[in-house]
Formats: sequence, C-alpha cells, structure tokens
Amino acid sequence: MAHEQVVSRPVTIAIDAMSGDQGPSVVVPAALEAVRENEALSIVLVGIRSELEALLREGHARIRIVEAADVVKMNERPSHALRHKRNSSMAIALGLVRDGEAQGCVSAGNTGALMAFGRSIIRMYPGIERPAIAKQIPSPRGRCHVLDLGANVDSTAENLYQYALMGSLMATAICAQPEPRIALLNVGEEEIKGNEQVRLASHMLAQCDTLNYIGYVEGSDLFRDVADVVVCDGFVGNIALKTGEGVAGMLIELLEKAFSRTLYGRLVGLLARPIVTRLLQVVDPARHNGASLLGLQGVVIKSHGNANECAMLAAIRQAVCEVELEVPRRINERLDDLML
Amino acid sequence: MAHEQVVSRPVTIAIDAMSGDQGPSVVVPAALEAVRENEALSIVLVGIRSELEALLREGHARIRIVEAADVVKMNERPSHALRHKRNSSMAIALGLVRDGEAQGCVSAGNTGALMAFGRSIIRMYPGIERPAIAKQIPSPRGRCHVLDLGANVDSTAENLYQYALMGSLMATAICAQPEPRIALLNVGEEEIKGNEQVRLASHMLAQCDTLNYIGYVEGSDLFRDVADVVVCDGFVGNIALKTGEGVAGMLIELLEKAFSRTLYGRLVGLLARPIVTRLLQVVDPARHNGASLLGLQGVVIKSHGNANECAMLAAIRQAVCEVELEVPRRINERLDDLML
Repeated sequence: MAHEQVVSRPVTIAIDAMSGDQGPSVVVPAALEAVRENEALSIVLVGIRSELEALLREGHARIRIVEAADVVKMNERPSHALRHKRNSSMAIALGLVRDGEAQGCVSAGNTGALMAFGRSIIRMYPGIERPAIAKQIPSPRGRCHVLDLGANVDSTAENLYQYALMGSLMATAICAQPEPRIALLNVGEEEIKGNEQVRLASHMLAQCDTLNYIGYVEGSDLFRDVADVVVCDGFVGNIALKTGEGVAGMLIELLEKAFSRTLYGRLVGLLARPIVTRLLQVVDPARHNGASLLGLQGVVIKSHGNANECAMLAAIRQAVCEVELEVPRRINERLDDLML
Repeated sequence: MAHEQVVSRPVTIAIDAMSGDQGPSVVVPAALEAVRENEALSIVLVGIRSELEALLREGHARIRIVEAADVVKMNERPSHALRHKRNSSMAIALGLVRDGEAQGCVSAGNTGALMAFGRSIIRMYPGIERPAIAKQIPSPRGRCHVLDLGANVDSTAENLYQYALMGSLMATAICAQPEPRIALLNVGEEEIKGNEQVRLASHMLAQCDTLNYIGYVEGSDLFRDVADVVVCDGFVGNIALKTGEGVAGMLIELLEKAFSRTLYGRLVGLLARPIVTRLLQVVDPARHNGASLLGLQGVVIKSHGNANECAMLAAIRQAVCEVELEVPRRINERLDDLML
C-alpha cells in the first residue's frame, strides 16, 4: 500500500459520504486529499448534496456528488435498514459498484447493514455462504491477514473453511504470496484444543492439498509472522482485534504520560519524540484503517466509525489498491477449484 | 497485592513443583524467595524428592517436600490424566488442599488437567456447573477481573451468568469493592449485538437486582476502567488475553529495537531506560502471573507454563493473597443468595 500511489488505469471509488461518527466533515477533506495524491482516481460522494457541496467549496474535477436522501443509523438493525433504507447513501454507493459506475466502495457506517446491503446489492462468489471482514494486522515482521473480524458470529466449520479459502486467495492477490501460510486461531496449538467448529475446520483444511494449512496459532502469534492468514469466527476476531487496539492505546498513553510527568521525563520525551513517533506509526490504527468485505464480487471497504481524515484516506487507498490488483476477479477465478 | 507481605496468620501453600516448562529449576528458587519475604508462609513442594533436594541444597525450615512419582504432561488429555495420573505432583498438591494440609495450591501445569483434577479432588461451590479461570488485567486506571480465560469453550448463558456471580464476589473479596461493575464482553455495545448465549446472559444479569450489571463492553474497554468484572466464554477470553499480550510484547520489542539501532537511539534509550522500565512494569506478564481457578472451594492458582522465577513468585503471592482474604469462604457464603 504505497502512500503516493502512481496508478495508470483510471479508478472510480464511491464513498458513503454520510457514514461515520463525523460524516461528511471527515469524508470530504479525505476525498480531496485522495484525488490530489492520485491523478488516476475519481471519487463519487454519495449523500446529501447541500451538505457535501458546502464542504467541497469550489469542488474538484474528479469528485462528483450523487444525491442520497437517507442515512443508515449506526445502531439500526440491518434487517430494518434493508427494508427501509434503499435510498440511503450506503445502498446507493453499493449500487454504483453493481452498475459499474464505480469499481469500489468505502463506508464508515453500520457494519451489519453494510454486510446486508453488500449481499443484496453486489453478488457474492458462487458457493460462499457468508462474507467475512478481513484486515491486514501490522507487525514488525510483516503483515498477517485476519478474518473474520466481526461480520458473522457463530461461524460453522464450513464457514471457517471458506474464510480460509478467500483469505488465502486475497493474500496471494495483495501480497503476491504464492502459498500463504493459513492457520486457525485457537486456545492452544495441540490437536485436542478448541471447540467443535475449529477442530472440524482444521480437519477440512488439513485435507485440502492446494492450501498451505499450518495448523492452530494462538492470539500472541498474530504478531510473530508465523502465519500469513489467520482464520477465526467474527465474535472472536472482533474481540481479539479490539483488545489488541486497547493494549496499544494503553501503552501509548502510558508512554506519553511518562514523558510529561517530570522535568527529566519531558526532556527525554523531547529527545525520544522522533524515535517514538516512527515506532507508533507501525501500530497507529488510523494508518491501518480499512477492512475488506470479502466474499462480494466487488471491492467494499469498511472504515472505522470514528475514523479521522487520515484514517479515511487510508481506507480510500485500501479500496484503490484492491481495485488496482483486481482482487475480486482473482479470487473468483480460483475459488471454484478450491471449494469442497 | 503487596510485594513484601506482612501476614499474621500462618499460611501453607502446596506447589506442583514438577509443573511448567522449567519445572523445579524455576519453582524451587521462587519458593525460597517466597518464604524469605514472608515469615508466615510455609511451602510444600510436591514432586520427585531427589530433584527437589538437589535444588534446595541445605533446605529451609518452612519448606518441606512431599514425594510424587508421576507428572502430568503439558499436552496430555485431561481425561487421560484423570484416569492414570492420580500419583502426579498436580493431583497430590491438590489433595493437600482438600485434606487441609495446605490452604492453597499453585501449578504451572496442563490447564485442562488442573481443572479436571480440581473438580474431582476439591469440591465445587454448590450449584456452580463449571469452574472458570479469572485474572486481574492491569491498566493505568485500576484492575479489571476477566473470566473465563480458557477453562471452558462453548459456555452457555447460564455458565456466563455464574461466572458473573463468582467474579463479582471475587472482586468484592479481593479489591473491597462493595458493588463491582459487571459487564459482558461483546462485539458492540448495542443490544442487538453478539451471539445468542451473550444476549441471553445479558437478559439474566439485567434481572438480578443484587448485581451491578452495566451491559456490554468491547475488547478495548478492558483497559479503560469502565467495568470491574468482565465476563466471557473461555475461548474468547483466552484469545483476547493472548492477543493483548502479543501486542504488548510487539511494542516492547519495537521500542527496544528503536533504542538500539542508531547511536542517537542508543543514547536516548540510555536516558529513557528508568522511565520505560517503570512503564513496562505495569504490563509485564511476569509481574501479573497467576490466574485463579474460580468455582472450587479452595485456592488454586494457575501459573503460565513458561513462568520464570519472578513470575512463579507472583503466582505464589497471588495464592497467599487469596488465602489471606479467605476468597473461597467469602464467595461460598454469598453465592447461595445470588443463584437463580
């Protein structure tokens, strides 16, 4: 994911501009920055025209607005959104991808509704039961694709097996890894550990010759470069991800407090600033914002609801990257051979 | 948990001295240090006498050895251990608690076997279906008791409710919190989030007048002092805990690398050393080693398998603390009133 992307083919990304805690006030400046840094990128902002125009001021040749009268609320039931919010910025942005007017979509909105609309508006890969949320977790030794991070609770062994297939193909498409190491997240590395679903999924993966399945890993292994793709149920993955973010946030807070308490601390803090800043970039959630809704035949990126401008920009870049690499086409082409 | 404990009443702790990756070579020095710093403490080391005597050298008046011919292996099935390892250091150490020869037991051994032997040798609280593993998670703003951390996968709503009861009473006993805030770990704070078990447990907890149930929290909330007791299934809790430890380990490694790469980095690292060392003590797993097997009518502390001497000492201190505070008696006395 280069930060100053040099893209040859034109790419259009639709953004659910009313989504996220800050809505257009974060989305519009991020969109302006995204088209500034990438000359091949066009953006369609979907939302309430008057609000968006006020923020866009003189506008930009590669940013256009598509009106959407409605907005999906953050705490709205997905089934309710599906029935009553066909005119929402979220649904219309996804519709632009279906209709080929955009190649990818970014939303910081209600995850459940985005999943539900995604499934209903954009086709899924044939045979895939449920889409999953996938994200690259940064570590000092590389990146690890983790899925599912919260799309589905109560995943079956079959679901876990399908996440592994999609994750493997995604890692190959994004990181050019020909045989990514696939692992299942479990409470121990021994065969007897875990619940029924995980043990059954392990059995299924072990029998698949075309996947490089390496067995179980534990939570601490996510940062040790022992696997390229780690598969888990969405309930588990979401809690693991947020716990990890919580620990990182706590340590950063402690470090900043320590560097501000005493005169000595403040002095050392000043000297250490460039070192610590570079270090924190590795784990800064804003720089790694943007999770993929994997399973849809189109690029759909979910941004954190509380994304700031920098984080929203990262999510847009992620969408551009997946469009450029033709991730959905490349997964679709190979998925059939791998299905049980 | 004071580090130089002044204890008035005599306390005896039995240690499964053959347990853990390092076995007696870690347990014996930790035991010697524990009796040195606490004059009211006696320790019974359970294991192979010749090995223990060699490490104890001239011995100590308050350390005695009880012979155990067998050892439970780390990857042994609990059911196998239960049938064939009645003469193991683990089973004999638990037996000393049952027989009143010790008030608490510490083991760094096979968690599943410790649970199984615990249930079979020491009685459980009446009505409690499964014991849970509980631990205090450190944060800058206090401590949060989290359970279950891996004793049980596939916890039912009833199990989760019982973990909440035991956790609440434990927080009251250990931290003198009269009305600890109880929360359920979930993938969002909204009512509709989560799986069936969590939603049902939430309903049960909300109807219990005597508990201070505050609703759902997310993984990142574990470090924000929003709850005193956080309840989850053991599969989820174990993975969350280990992911958090993984992030902390990664950040510490990054920090140390940054402070050793360049001449400037090394200089700043030297100046920052006292500040960073104090900071890392807050999250150092060794200083917080020792999880409680909650549900048994006796103090049983599980140490990390890879505990070093400092970590084993922390686990022994945790056992002494719970014996001193009479945690099992205090839970037992109040549990009956709270059971559904």
